[in-house]
Formats: sequence, structure tokens, C-alpha cells
Amino acid sequence: MTHSQDSAEILCIGTEILLGNIVNTNSAVISRGLADIGINMFHHTVVGDNPNRLKDALDIAFSRNNIVVTTGGLGPTYDDLSKETVADYFGVKLKLHEPSAQSIRTFFDRWKRQMTENNLKQAMMPEGCIVLENRNGTAPGAILEKDGKIAVLLPGPPREMTPMFEQQVIPYLQKRSQQVFRSHCVYFFGIGESALESKLRQDIEKMQNPTIAPYAKEGEVMLRVTASAHTAEEAEALLKPAVEMLQSRFPQYIYGIDVENLQTAVVRALHAKKLKVATAESCTGGYISKRITEVAGSSAVFDCGVTSYANEIKENLLGVKHETLQKYGAVSHQTAKEMADGVRRISGADIGVSTTGIAGPDGGTDEKPVGLVYVGISSEWYNEVLELQLSRGYASEREFIRYLAGSHALNAVLKAIKEYQ
Amino acid sequence: MTHSQDSAEILCIGTEILLGNIVNTNSAVISRGLADIGINMFHHTVVGDNPNRLKDALDIAFSRNNIVVTTGGLGPTYDDLSKETVADYFGVKLKLHEPSAQSIRTFFDRWKRQMTENNLKQAMMPEGCIVLENRNGTAPGAILEKDGKIAVLLPGPPREMTPMFEQQVIPYLQKRSQQVFRSHCVYFFGIGESALESKLRQDIEKMQNPTIAPYAKEGEVMLRVTASAHTAEEAEALLKPAVEMLQSRFPQYIYGIDVENLQTAVVRALHAKKLKVATAESCTGGYISKRITEVAGSSAVFDCGVTSYANEIKENLLGVKHETLQKYGAVSHQTAKEMADGVRRISGADIGVSTTGIAGPDGGTDEKPVGLVYVGISSEWYNEVLELQLSRGYASEREFIRYLAGSHALNAVLKAIKEYQ
Repeated sequence: MTHSQDSAEILCIGTEILLGNIVNTNSAVISRGLADIGINMFHHTVVGDNPNRLKDALDIAFSRNNIVVTTGGLGPTYDDLSKETVADYFGVKLKLHEPSAQSIRTFFDRWKRQMTENNLKQAMMPEGCIVLENRNGTAPGAILEKDGKIAVLLPGPPREMTPMFEQQVIPYLQKRSQQVFRSHCVYFFGIGESALESKLRQDIEKMQNPTIAPYAKEGEVMLRVTASAHTAEEAEALLKPAVEMLQSRFPQYIYGIDVENLQTAVVRALHAKKLKVATAESCTGGYISKRITEVAGSSAVFDCGVTSYANEIKENLLGVKHETLQKYGAVSHQTAKEMADGVRRISGADIGVSTTGIAGPDGGTDEKPVGLVYVGISSEWYNEVLELQLSRGYASEREFIRYLAGSHALNAVLKAIKEYQ
Repeated sequence: MTHSQDSAEILCIGTEILLGNIVNTNSAVISRGLADIGINMFHHTVVGDNPNRLKDALDIAFSRNNIVVTTGGLGPTYDDLSKETVADYFGVKLKLHEPSAQSIRTFFDRWKRQMTENNLKQAMMPEGCIVLENRNGTAPGAILEKDGKIAVLLPGPPREMTPMFEQQVIPYLQKRSQQVFRSHCVYFFGIGESALESKLRQDIEKMQNPTIAPYAKEGEVMLRVTASAHTAEEAEALLKPAVEMLQSRFPQYIYGIDVENLQTAVVRALHAKKLKVATAESCTGGYISKRITEVAGSSAVFDCGVTSYANEIKENLLGVKHETLQKYGAVSHQTAKEMADGVRRISGADIGVSTTGIAGPDGGTDEKPVGLVYVGISSEWYNEVLELQLSRGYASEREFIRYLAGSHALNAVLKAIKEYQ
């Protein structure tokens, strides 16, 4: 579905990016947002804080696109030149924008910091632009439009850029297209991106509205279903059958709609059924506990986690039997089971989940190789131990194995929660 | 210090990046590597898997640089066009590279997967190129050099790209410059980037060889000190006084040289003194335990971590006194102290470290606002409770507060370790 002939280029301005000091995460955020509203993207460019190269890059970008989104270069120092360069390109001047100047003064007052005059440079805005308020920093953004060309100027720090882009730029660009866009994100675990894509390729190719776009990350796939229509209700009506089609075709793999990630799905599901989970972690070393508690509100559903890296802790804190460890070893079906039971018992939680395995790089044997992980689940209605082999055979995959083991554990917790009415 | 007139552009090829499906981390890795060996970088470009746009981007890149590093587009499918496009530009043909074909066949045999003929496309290499072996995947890379122009072709997946770049491309480019480069990384905690930079600005500006470049991340700064010389020994001799200057000027802030991060510094320091640490976490929810256990070899120095999110767990598992929680609350100096003591006692570790605080977004009060965190340290020689205020006043900073609280805790563990002889 092509909503328009709009095409955009992202022009990131910042020597820190060229030096590799920071990773350019802004481009991914902007790309995803524009893709969702049907704006084509064929180029990303990064240039440093250099006036000539910036001007050249802007010329090239506008020669091949009608929309250019810049990030960075809005700060108070002399080498912050985004507004100057874009204003020049559009043939307008910079002028003090009093409301922005006032909020900069307020910001410095509030944090009791000394404001220097050059901070007001941030309130010098191109004449005739739409000023984008910055609710997370001092530099406002801007939108300039002239002769069918649109420049969007955004600050560099992601925590300032992202909300400004999502709350102010996307609605502005959407309005242009006279279309309303709505998306739902369907989250999959346990099926790879290529397997899912091959099952869905024909559907994806023949769908015009809504569209389905896959996004993969370590061990998971998210499908974003996006519809455009004249009203939000019409867009939602278009989305409904597509989301239902996915739910009916892949019930065993979908762990949530619009849930963001496994840990959020777990915390929400526990909340909904007034249940609690507790963790007993060996190879994941606290990673599952960390993921659960990163969700705001998790304290209502999570009281207790134990990282039992040593056998003594498995015995003394979790009550794993000495004979079990002796006979089967720490990395075993039996130990995983007793860890999950143990943490459930000591915490009083409804569900106990455990991991024990070999994350590498060392510690693997022929019998118990790197990547072997047991996940235990203990609950009133659902008890299971999963045996997983998570190695892909590459070097330095400790982080991958730990993360994926945690994902399997969280997914197993979701299954346990489903057994409760 | 300009080592040469070399300048490079990174040309990332991949529609997934333009769609925002993946974040372009490769560019940061390559940029940092080239900066370290004195190669200038003025542009990054991203294009999709489109032959015309790729060709145009390559023309533009070589019109302004003598080195172009591409990532992506080396795969087996028809839209993987990096080698074809670059070979065309250099006026050479592709030809089957038998050793690469053989390792692709071996790869498929080893994983018992069916190899299709198009996989051999990955072994079709530009005539006269240097083939870069891929030890973490199937697509080899290549270096082409002609008339002073150098094209470096690397695979897209970071776990394939990074080792190939570091182990094969950097040595190749270094050799060209007839200089040997050596770096040391000096890690700081407790001082901001701008504060450190302003104290060092004059030194940094007047230094030619070695150079000092700052890299900032959440709450930390790393200074990379890089020297070039004819031999490694000469380079090291140049580095020594610069690193010593930093150590003598900022002894209270430097937590390690070439240690990568706080958790690695902690694990190494514990190893060196044969000590163990245990964690009792409330607001960090397992994050410290997760960070310690992400370091390979941590099992020798870490047996036990407890996430005590609920008061009952603080009491029952860690032995925090009921009266303490009643009188001072869970977020208090006293509770932090008893948590650290408790986990040290139950684990038998030499050092206990605890956190209790308010990570937000909810749960803050006037008296105990979001961002208030206590870090407790319990050990034979060093006992302390730090009171921290980690909020910057922005929305959605839960992750930031949790991470930074963990960094303060790890830094405090380093201080405790220093007290042991």
C-alpha cells in the first residue's frame, strides 16, 4: 500500500556518531514511525558538525526526497548548525521564539543552574516554522514546509527526540496524508522469523490494507499490523480480521497483543489473575528477576527472586536435596524441578520458575554441553521441566544463551498462568 | 594527529535498517575502530537492497573518500548485491572461491541442514580481492584495492561483522599506514563527561600523540588513549605517561584500565583477592546479580543473590528486623544495612551489597521521592550505606535509576575489595 509519493531521508548530525561514541538509535525509531504511516525511506545519512558537509548532505537529501528529518545540532554551542543550515536552504532567517526562550529560563531556574546567554541560541527558530515543544530537554524542534519540501528538525538525545517525534511529528505528517493510521503489534515466541514469514508470505504479499511487517529480535518475532482509513474506527475495523487471522493460525506461538515484551505480558497476566511468581535462577543469574522488575508495577506480582549460583545456596536457601545435586548434578531436570518448587515454597508465590544450565563459554562437557538449560515451573496446576539446547555453535554467546533461557522461562510462566481461571 | 590522508565512509546496505527493524550498531563499531587507527570518517550512509541506489551511493562515497566500508548484502538471495556492485565499480568479475565454497558446505554438513545452490553465491568473490574468512557465519568478506581506492565488504550480522572487522580489517588497514597503534581505555565512575572534559580540555587539545578521546555512557565515562609509533613498544612507551597522568589526577574516579565495565572490574578484583560477593536487591530487582553473572568466570566469586522485593522476603530470607522495617521503612539507611549484613551472613560471602530505593514511576513521596536509593555494603573491613538521589526529573527513568543504582553498588563493592590486602 502506498499512501503517498512522500519519501523521506534521515540526516543525523553529530560527530559523536561518526566517531562511534554513540550508536544511532534515533534512525531506527524514526524509520519505524514513518514506515507505519506509509512514508518511504530510501536513505539514512550521518554527517558531523561541519557546515559545508552538512549543507552538501542536505542538498543531496532534498534532491532525492521531499521530506528530510534531521536529528542533532540543535544545542547551544557554535558548532550546532542544523537550524542555520536548514533556514538557509529554505531562504528564511532565525528569530527569537519567546515561548521557547521562556521555557529554557524556567528549566534553568527549576534545576538551580546558571543559564549562559548561548543557551538562548536554542530558542532562535527559523521564521515561519512550526515550533516543536521539547518536554524532556531545552532545545525545541521545528518543522519547515515550502514548495512541497518538508524539513523536520529534531534534537539528538533519544529521550528528547522520541517523544517529540511520536507526539508531534507523526500527527503532523499523518494529517498531511488525510488518512488515519492504526497499528497493533502481535508478539510471537517459539517460532523463528523466517519460518513465520514463509508461512505468511502469501498473505503478506497480497494484503494491501492492513499491511503486516515483521520485526525480529533475539528469539522472538513481532508482527506489526497497520491499517489506514478515514477514521480510527474504520482503521480498527480493518485491523480486527487480520489480528484474528494471526491468532487463529498461531495460537501456540502468540504471547500477546500490544504487550511490548514477554516480561510485560507476564506481569499483566499475573495482575489480571492476582497471582505471584518467584524466580530461582542459576545460569540466568538474576536476569529473569531483572526483566520482571523492569516492568513498572511488578512489585504487586513479584516478591522474591534467588540467584543460586553455588550448590550450597541451592541446598540451603532453596531446599534442593543434597542427593539430587550429587546424583544428577546442578544442571539437571531434577535440580530445576526442586529449585522451582523450593522458591515457590519459601516465597509463598503461586508460581515458581527456575533455570539451571551452562551458559558458557566454559563449563561444557560432551554430556552437558554449553547451551544446555533446564527451565522448571512449579505451580498448583502446571508443573513442567523444559530441556533446551540454546547454543548456535558460535563463540561468545553467553549473553544470548542467558537471555533466551530467560525468555523460555517467562513464556513457560505465561503457560502456567493460563491454567488458573 | 593525522596519520594519513585516508578518509572512510561506511555504507550500510539493508532494507531492514531503513524500515527501523534493526538498529545500526555496526557503524559505531567500525567508526570506533577506524578512529583508533587515525582514519577520518565524515559520512555514514544507509541504503536498501536496491541496485541503482546502491550504485549511486557507492559513487557518492568514493567521490568524497578513498575508503568505503560496506556492511550487509553478502547473503545468498538475489537481492544481496554488495559484491556485484563493488566488483562492477572496480571493473572485475566474480569467481567461485573454492575454500569459501568448501567451508559453506562444511557448515551445512555440521548443522545437518540442507544446502541449496544459492548458498554458493556467497562464495562468489571479486577477482583479485582479499577474501576475509567468516568464522561466525557463512558469508566471507572481501577487500578490493585499486588506484588508491579501497573497498571493504563485511557481512551484516554484528556477531559476524565485528570479529571479521577487528581481526582481519583493522590489521590490514594498520599495515598500510606503516604505523602501529595501541590504545588503553581508562574507566571513570562518579564524574560526568562534561566535568571530566572541562578538567582535561587543555591537555586533550595540546596532545598530539597519544590522543585522548572520551566516550560517555549512562553515568560513566571512558577515555581511550591511543598512540601510534613504529613499534608496539614505542607506542606503549608513549601511552604510559598519559595513562599515569590520568591515574594521578583522578584516582578517586578511575575504577580500572582496560576492564570494559564495572561488573568486569568487580569480578576481576574479587578473583585477584579470592573474595566473594553476595547481593540483596530491592529496587534493582536482580540487575546487579545479572550484571555480575554476565561476566564469564563469575561463578568463582559469586554464589548467591536475593531479590527481596517484598518486606516479608527481606525479613524471612535476609533477616532484616521487623522493627527496622516498621520504624524506618523498606527504603532506609537501616534496611539497606541489614540487607547487606543479612545476605553476607546467609551466603558466607566476604562482601554483601544491597539496594533499596524508589525506581518509579510510582511510589514516590515528598519525603522519599522517586530516585532515592540506599546502597549498603557489609564486609569485614568496610561498611557503609550510601544515600543517592538518582532522578533527573524526567518521565520514564525507571531503567536509568535501576541501572545507575547498580553501578553505584558495584563501585562500592570495588571500594570494599580495596580494603582487603
